[in-house]
Amino acid sequence: MATASSPKAKKLWGGRFTGETDPLMHKYNQSLSYDQRMWREDIDGSVVYAKALETQGIITREELESIISGLEAVGKEWEGSTFEIAPNDEDIHTANERRLVELIGDAGKKLHTGRSRNDQVATDGRLWTMRRLQVLRQDLRTFLRIAGERAEEEVDAIMPGFTHLQPAQTVRWSHWLLSHCAALQRDDERLRDMIPRVARLPLGSGALAGNPFNVDRQGMAEELGFFDGVCPNSMDAVSDRDWVIEAIFCSVMIMTHLSRWAEDLIVYSTAQFGYVSMADAYSTGSSLMPQKKNPDALELLRGKAGRTLGSLAGILTVVKGTPTTYNKDLQEDKEMLFDVMDTVMDSMKIAIGVVSTMTIHPEKMKEGLSPDMLATDLAEYLVRKGMPFRDTHHVAGEAVALAEKKGCGISDLSLEDLQSLSDLFASDVSEVWSFDRSAELRCTEGGTAKSSVLEQVSKLNTYLDS
Amino acid sequence: MATASSPKAKKLWGGRFTGETDPLMHKYNQSLSYDQRMWREDIDGSVVYAKALETQGIITREELESIISGLEAVGKEWEGSTFEIAPNDEDIHTANERRLVELIGDAGKKLHTGRSRNDQVATDGRLWTMRRLQVLRQDLRTFLRIAGERAEEEVDAIMPGFTHLQPAQTVRWSHWLLSHCAALQRDDERLRDMIPRVARLPLGSGALAGNPFNVDRQGMAEELGFFDGVCPNSMDAVSDRDWVIEAIFCSVMIMTHLSRWAEDLIVYSTAQFGYVSMADAYSTGSSLMPQKKNPDALELLRGKAGRTLGSLAGILTVVKGTPTTYNKDLQEDKEMLFDVMDTVMDSMKIAIGVVSTMTIHPEKMKEGLSPDMLATDLAEYLVRKGMPFRDTHHVAGEAVALAEKKGCGISDLSLEDLQSLSDLFASDVSEVWSFDRSAELRCTEGGTAKSSVLEQVSKLNTYLDS
Amino acid sequence: MATASSPKAKKLWGGRFTGETDPLMHKYNQSLSYDQRMWREDIDGSVVYAKALETQGIITREELESIISGLEAVGKEWEGSTFEIAPNDEDIHTANERRLVELIGDAGKKLHTGRSRNDQVATDGRLWTMRRLQVLRQDLRTFLRIAGERAEEEVDAIMPGFTHLQPAQTVRWSHWLLSHCAALQRDDERLRDMIPRVARLPLGSGALAGNPFNVDRQGMAEELGFFDGVCPNSMDAVSDRDWVIEAIFCSVMIMTHLSRWAEDLIVYSTAQFGYVSMADAYSTGSSLMPQKKNPDALELLRGKAGRTLGSLAGILTVVKGTPTTYNKDLQEDKEMLFDVMDTVMDSMKIAIGVVSTMTIHPEKMKEGLSPDMLATDLAEYLVRKGMPFRDTHHVAGEAVALAEKKGCGISDLSLEDLQSLSDLFASDVSEVWSFDRSAELRCTEGGTAKSSVLEQVSKLNTYLDS
Amino acid sequence: MATASSPKAKKLWGGRFTGETDPLMHKYNQSLSYDQRMWREDIDGSVVYAKALETQGIITREELESIISGLEAVGKEWEGSTFEIAPNDEDIHTANERRLVELIGDAGKKLHTGRSRNDQVATDGRLWTMRRLQVLRQDLRTFLRIAGERAEEEVDAIMPGFTHLQPAQTVRWSHWLLSHCAALQRDDERLRDMIPRVARLPLGSGALAGNPFNVDRQGMAEELGFFDGVCPNSMDAVSDRDWVIEAIFCSVMIMTHLSRWAEDLIVYSTAQFGYVSMADAYSTGSSLMPQKKNPDALELLRGKAGRTLGSLAGILTVVKGTPTTYNKDLQEDKEMLFDVMDTVMDSMKIAIGVVSTMTIHPEKMKEGLSPDMLATDLAEYLVRKGMPFRDTHHVAGEAVALAEKKGCGISDLSLEDLQSLSDLFASDVSEVWSFDRSAELRCTEGGTAKSSVLEQVSKLNTYLDS
Repeated sequence: MATASSPKAKKLWGGRFTGETDPLMHKYNQSLSYDQRMWREDIDGSVVYAKALETQGIITREELESIISGLEAVGKEWEGSTFEIAPNDEDIHTANERRLVELIGDAGKKLHTGRSRNDQVATDGRLWTMRRLQVLRQDLRTFLRIAGERAEEEVDAIMPGFTHLQPAQTVRWSHWLLSHCAALQRDDERLRDMIPRVARLPLGSGALAGNPFNVDRQGMAEELGFFDGVCPNSMDAVSDRDWVIEAIFCSVMIMTHLSRWAEDLIVYSTAQFGYVSMADAYSTGSSLMPQKKNPDALELLRGKAGRTLGSLAGILTVVKGTPTTYNKDLQEDKEMLFDVMDTVMDSMKIAIGVVSTMTIHPEKMKEGLSPDMLATDLAEYLVRKGMPFRDTHHVAGEAVALAEKKGCGISDLSLEDLQSLSDLFASDVSEVWSFDRSAELRCTEGGTAKSSVLEQVSKLNTYLDS
Repeated sequence: MATASSPKAKKLWGGRFTGETDPLMHKYNQSLSYDQRMWREDIDGSVVYAKALETQGIITREELESIISGLEAVGKEWEGSTFEIAPNDEDIHTANERRLVELIGDAGKKLHTGRSRNDQVATDGRLWTMRRLQVLRQDLRTFLRIAGERAEEEVDAIMPGFTHLQPAQTVRWSHWLLSHCAALQRDDERLRDMIPRVARLPLGSGALAGNPFNVDRQGMAEELGFFDGVCPNSMDAVSDRDWVIEAIFCSVMIMTHLSRWAEDLIVYSTAQFGYVSMADAYSTGSSLMPQKKNPDALELLRGKAGRTLGSLAGILTVVKGTPTTYNKDLQEDKEMLFDVMDTVMDSMKIAIGVVSTMTIHPEKMKEGLSPDMLATDLAEYLVRKGMPFRDTHHVAGEAVALAEKKGCGISDLSLEDLQSLSDLFASDVSEVWSFDRSAELRCTEGGTAKSSVLEQVSKLNTYLDS
Repeated sequence: MATASSPKAKKLWGGRFTGETDPLMHKYNQSLSYDQRMWREDIDGSVVYAKALETQGIITREELESIISGLEAVGKEWEGSTFEIAPNDEDIHTANERRLVELIGDAGKKLHTGRSRNDQVATDGRLWTMRRLQVLRQDLRTFLRIAGERAEEEVDAIMPGFTHLQPAQTVRWSHWLLSHCAALQRDDERLRDMIPRVARLPLGSGALAGNPFNVDRQGMAEELGFFDGVCPNSMDAVSDRDWVIEAIFCSVMIMTHLSRWAEDLIVYSTAQFGYVSMADAYSTGSSLMPQKKNPDALELLRGKAGRTLGSLAGILTVVKGTPTTYNKDLQEDKEMLFDVMDTVMDSMKIAIGVVSTMTIHPEKMKEGLSPDMLATDLAEYLVRKGMPFRDTHHVAGEAVALAEKKGCGISDLSLEDLQSLSDLFASDVSEVWSFDRSAELRCTEGGTAKSSVLEQVSKLNTYLDS
Repeated sequence: MATASSPKAKKLWGGRFTGETDPLMHKYNQSLSYDQRMWREDIDGSVVYAKALETQGIITREELESIISGLEAVGKEWEGSTFEIAPNDEDIHTANERRLVELIGDAGKKLHTGRSRNDQVATDGRLWTMRRLQVLRQDLRTFLRIAGERAEEEVDAIMPGFTHLQPAQTVRWSHWLLSHCAALQRDDERLRDMIPRVARLPLGSGALAGNPFNVDRQGMAEELGFFDGVCPNSMDAVSDRDWVIEAIFCSVMIMTHLSRWAEDLIVYSTAQFGYVSMADAYSTGSSLMPQKKNPDALELLRGKAGRTLGSLAGILTVVKGTPTTYNKDLQEDKEMLFDVMDTVMDSMKIAIGVVSTMTIHPEKMKEGLSPDMLATDLAEYLVRKGMPFRDTHHVAGEAVALAEKKGCGISDLSLEDLQSLSDLFASDVSEVWSFDRSAELRCTEGGTAKSSVLEQVSKLNTYLDS
């Protein structure tokens, strides 16, 4: 780190103050330790802003060229990890400007003309977020693609479907997997819908009142890739953190979905269920117990979902607690945003790894199918014979109770047993006792019949192709 | 309330259990006390489901007619507050079905064929939410329309713009008002984008595995107004509460925006600021202090925002903590959803009242304008004379310090005073000391110049008209 | 409900306003619909305040008697559900005072002398909360007493202990049950520590500046049961909602513990685990699937924990977002407080019911014990032979792998097999293959050995007796 | 960073796995990047554990000495920032053990005998937290001491007391300051009550079932400073994160109090109020606007409160979402704990700086006192003349309205004016128009009279001395 020489030591806003800052206050107030990750976005934004100043005649073409090559040099320093932070650098904006002035002199002092850190930080942050969200979306779609393929290949595995974690009805493994795809597809839609709200340029809003040098905001937006235009009101532009909140919210939704998926898989990979095994790559052992193989990746997905939820509550509380335009409270947005984006992006990649490598055990799934899971089918048998459903439900319940009393499965009840409950039972009741048939009967859109499941895969692919 | 006669007393799922429930458990488990608000949606859904059953030949046309007129009669009872709740009614679904059977007998027992409360409650809830969100959106747009009109009319009022609650630069009152419109317009966009995700039909998903009677799901969706089609996967359909979370999230965003608006107005309506006065209709007094006139409506907007945020954290935690498909935890969604929707809908109407009736005090606003708020303009004066901005910022800071030392405003500094700081100052510096000019210079898109502000109004109206 | 006659219709603070309130504003602003539950506390506080006024000579003894009998009459009306709410009653305080004046005339108008709703509502709320927390604490201790008894009786049942939901080591069922008692005992300690912070009297603080009639605050505190004295600063007294937050926090902690307990039990009561069965009283069935028996009580415990967490985030956000002393935002505290207290109190009673009635299946627990859970014991065997633990862990891991490769349990490996991994193995290794021995070896304080478990029960009882 | 040589590369639990880990999985799974801050606690815990093993004869005295000096050497490396992290170091525990074994060989491999990372991490974390909480408590008490002194010195400054941010009644500046002390004193009590719940030793609980080598847990607790003894149940000991949650909760409460204090001061330091000025050391300027002096320290206190609240919601959601004993989700506790503890400790120090250096402007405070703030005193004047308070409130309200109509303050109303409202007014009403008298009348405990305020200071000091 560079030592403070006197020019470096002069704070940008230092013309007026006479007191000294508390050393802890510098640490408390600074954001450079974390916002330096936006160095590239800060430089990109400055290049475009300098061009706009030149167009307006505020700086000369020569100055512009000097600024651009200076900024590029600063960027190289960050890229090569040779950028030396000066003691008074507060944030990435002041650090970059300070360094630029060191490198190119007076022209550098013109860069901030008509700009404020208020519109600058919003620009950097949006650009950073926009770029990450696009990567996230690609990874999310990769997950969906892989899961869809798996669902197609493994469509013949049937397993108990659970409600309340109790055996409910026969379903296909693929149907279960696709139910999670449906949730993640909604996440993709949400990202699709919200990214445009991130992609609006605040630059040219100044501190709050607008830019007095008539910079071309639409032009800057276009050049920086803010494809949805410019923020429509300068006071809102420096005040608004909806884009942070919404990026975090969409991430929390993804994490919540991954958490529920992980929870299902943690249960399914217990010794007692045994339906799936995690690849070693996504498991770890115990420092004490040699036999352990723990689904750490899944537990981390589940745990990290909770942490991101905290950040959502946090950012909302921060923003809710401030009057409008810029207040320093808003600086707190970044650590939460960065942490959540890192978390969701890593988690999505881990989820891709898990879904690509886990092994299923169809025979264990089949073992889990018990005849009482066909009680609904038994009721439906009677429905088809004309008995009102509410009565058939009662009769089938009595059949379950009778079987329990006899210590057998309901499929082991004799026809006489069943006829003691209703005289609508006939020998064709034996057809009810097929798990495959039970699944195949649910052939409406979204059901667990093979055709319905394959149709879901096909629709998912259509969505992904569009 | 009706006393339990034996047929009423029989729980729908009661064929099997022998033990009695703990009386508290009934209370703990029931949802009827709050989900009865969805009686209309429950009946609408049942009518459409009955039609679908008839189309599939599960019930006869006669039974269908009987069911429909029975359901209408049940609806009349709710409408007229004559519906008698039976002791064993657990939720709106069982209550309505119980009553239907009482009214029309066996045909009523056929209604639930192939349906589960799992897909039924999701259908009712989505329908209820969809209808409220549409009303909310209308009210939101009414607010925007009124605020836009006000901004247009009052465009000539100028006031101090604050950052960090410290006087920053001159802005138009209307610019401030439109900054809140920009935030609320994003809320409208969010509602526009998310309502389709609510408008997908779960009905026909059964308990989790799908419907075995091949009911026409697309047809039901259309008839019920689920304009975005059907939920694509039955396990997801009964498991998914994204629509609750997203409805709550969008509401929290609206409340957060109203809270910040209220916070601004609370400060602006203090005795010390005095920029605005709330109408009596939205103020209250003190039980002890006769002179008090408190901005209760604003404080409630601000406070209720916090409460809705809690519900967002709550629903996310509930959903995150469950495996997939239906678990009873999901019943907890409704109290949060109802409370948030009521809150946001009432709050929006209150906000409309406030924005329609508050009085502004342009003279007090003007009094708040102090010459040091033109320090940036002074710096920009030097920029236009060729000094690099970073240096002009320093010089202007010295001017502020000099004025403070002299006990005058910076606009009272003599030309000599200024020239002692920089020889670029000339007599034309006097033009800087105009608040109007300061505002008018910010004429880029989104700026505070009159033309920019009026353009914002016009774009807002274009948005609202589309 | 009473119709507004003119005296009833006059708002308490109505001397000054000329405008009319928006009808929705009355609904939005009122709290009577929910704070009427504090009617008893409101009356108790008023009785004590009237006595204090009499002592100071502000009212006569005759007026005091009239006020007391008037307040008792008002209380009777609430008790008998005959209290008629007038249209302009805003909250329980104005409703009670309005009714008192109707009943006893002018003396009633003296009751509010020197008092404000600001100190009154804090007094009522604290009193209400204090009373509930004491009941909650008793119920919590009942749970602990019952669970302790059960743990003692069932101490011989051994089961797999899980980490990461994977079989880890042998533990006693009672050890598991007591682990939850340890958590709930901390909750009891927390309540013990925090109730005094609730039990401080705000009354006599006025609107914010204190009471000008020198009422005896300590005396009032004593008479009302505020055993920790009076709030030390009047501005803080009307501003402070720590007692709400801390009551909610302690409740959330209890709910979080019950949720984790419920989560364990939900897993243990799956068909695949089968370690416990819930009593019918705490289970429910399915409207569609006749065979289902769902652990609804447990799922509700788990779900409601999430909802209370939301209220904690909500109340903190509300309070954080306000300047000090009283702001109307604080009115939002009550719905969250009431909902959380109801939830935690009901949940504790449900938990008592569950723990009292569930059945355990020790034979299913035993089936769950697999030889690889003794791998740690195998490593410890080698430790006792002198091999460094880290190496023994490695050897035992190899034994597990070898057994897997051979398709047998590690206890089925021959001595030769083991000796191929380490020559420290001798014939006494066979002693390792006992689950009971494994449990009994963990006999340090807090361990799973029978003696350790029984000592835990004994310490728990000592705590409960103190 | 060291390159992985083969012994370093062997994961502690590596005897069994054959697959390779995904490189991202290492990053996703590791905690060393943040838990290395607990290196000292990890070493302290290991030293004590080694001693306990020696007492039980598991290791020899020689081995013990070797382990201790090895651990001290490892500690020196951390202290001197020369510790080289190996690629496979997952967390501080495995890193320290790996390095110990490198340094001292086989004896190092014995250290983990009977210990698990599950009890180790809980031990380290509690020790780390306990130490920080004690420092935090000292700083909190320093704040209270300074604020008390200030309150004593500045007791004569009177100012408007606000409710709803509207002028309410005359209060002393010191009374306001002490109202915040009352809140922070409760925080001190909370820390006092909860630190014992942190100070319970988990070590000796193993992975979950207890320690099989009979280590002396009470002795270890004593030696490590766990003054409240040992965790009573080993399964709870590795599962419990109440100590994290409660440390975060207490921190959130402190931050919430500091946030409200900051909010008050931000308002009081606006140009419009002008009651206080922040020292330059705790203010910053603007990159654009030369005149700006922003209360950044206060805004950061306010903003960071929101972020810590998020962590509370986050940790609760994480813990609520896991079954009991150790699950990897619990690893997520640390980043939130560390961040919150850093934040609250820094914030407390910043608050000390602010309270020590801010300047008050008593003349501006006095200017804020307006006659209508004496309306309550006017009502009380009539109370003393015998009129029922509720009527006096009405009359005083009419006086306010009359003054407004006449365009004067209520203190400017003539006796005739007043007598037109009530004939109880006499010439002694003029005594009412004194702000000092108004303050002095509130002389009950906790009131704003000088004697009451000084008594509050005295009680605060008594508390701090005890």
